[in-house]
Amino acid sequence: MGNKALVVLSGGQDSTTCLWWAIDKFGQANVSALTFDYGQRHRIELECAGQVATLAGIPQAELPIDTFAALGGNSLTDIRIDIEGKSADDLPNTFVPGRNLVFLTYAAAFAWPRGIRNIVTGVAQTDYSGYPDCRAETIAALEKTICLGMEYDFTIHTPLMNLSKKETVMLAKSLGAIDAMAHTHTCYEGQRPPCGTCPACILRAKGFAEAGIPDPLLAS
Amino acid sequence: MGNKALVVLSGGQDSTTCLWWAIDKFGQANVSALTFDYGQRHRIELECAGQVATLAGIPQAELPIDTFAALGGNSLTDIRIDIEGKSADDLPNTFVPGRNLVFLTYAAAFAWPRGIRNIVTGVAQTDYSGYPDCRAETIAALEKTICLGMEYDFTIHTPLMNLSKKETVMLAKSLGAIDAMAHTHTCYEGQRPPCGTCPACILRAKGFAEAGIPDPLLAS
Repeated sequence: MGNKALVVLSGGQDSTTCLWWAIDKFGQANVSALTFDYGQRHRIELECAGQVATLAGIPQAELPIDTFAALGGNSLTDIRIDIEGKSADDLPNTFVPGRNLVFLTYAAAFAWPRGIRNIVTGVAQTDYSGYPDCRAETIAALEKTICLGMEYDFTIHTPLMNLSKKETVMLAKSLGAIDAMAHTHTCYEGQRPPCGTCPACILRAKGFAEAGIPDPLLAS
Repeated sequence: MGNKALVVLSGGQDSTTCLWWAIDKFGQANVSALTFDYGQRHRIELECAGQVATLAGIPQAELPIDTFAALGGNSLTDIRIDIEGKSADDLPNTFVPGRNLVFLTYAAAFAWPRGIRNIVTGVAQTDYSGYPDCRAETIAALEKTICLGMEYDFTIHTPLMNLSKKETVMLAKSLGAIDAMAHTHTCYEGQRPPCGTCPACILRAKGFAEAGIPDPLLAS
């Protein structure tokens, strides 16, 4: 029971690598995946997550989150509670500070009745993100919070926390996850094949190039 | 700016007391309220929250949370991820372990772009709840988590944390909040006037009786 793991699977390169990492560490029969439908601009992300889970032979559940869009500003019921410095309309529709806190808390709430103690997430504090809710210190505080708040012995695993994109690609290779990358989605523009010019595409290409491994998404 | 406060307002006795506490501490012009619509079995709770906010002259926003109902078990997309020991159908439709973690994280996400640093919640570790996500230790860990995760200096205030129900009623009286209690909702059965026999009604009645104050909800 202490060996079951839940991977937060977005359908991107990082969470897909984490899925293979979890299978390697906990065994395929012990791993499941959770994907959030929070009104992503590009629905292809959800399709990719489903394809990756199927390819891995892993059960996957999808949870809806309508709150992010409401927090984004357009659905607020009382405009007298002003946004500081900018109008609610200036915030992207699904922008939520600390979004990963919500994702991981829901993952824990999902894991709890299923006896799953290990939660795996692809957040990283290196190279590209810089989001404060992706840092090791934040994740450690959150782990403590959910353990206390649910009286349960959770471990949040962050295998990519200190890896560069190059190192993540190399980890994926060592885990046999490169073929699965053909089913992942990275492009900010939601294009498939990817646009190749948005910051996400460029970062992904740089990681594969530095690792000396062709990106199967581009070959497909 | 550091003086603005957001009260998590459910429409119950405790959060209503907290609203008056926040007005007393931060000033009416600095206080706003946030209510969550998570599919409560009794919609009257939402009506009560609205009435209480209006009575207090405080702006109130309502945020939808559809995820709880999905977590409750009926909307899961992959039944191979089993619930331990019981079927998904055995869990109440809106049961979520650590629910207050979600509420307070969303409250922080709502407060953040509005420059609100103070979050007020009516959770208490005495007398009646015993939920691990209501304890002081959990709230302290969560406060640290949201401060780190959103890079912002939040304070979570829990004025009722160590009060008995009697003491909460006496605090409400000292704050001039007793009249507002006529608009609050407590009854588990969703009845108005309250059933008087459910555990919540009995606990509420005991608090008012021990404080020697008539409950205006029963007189109305």
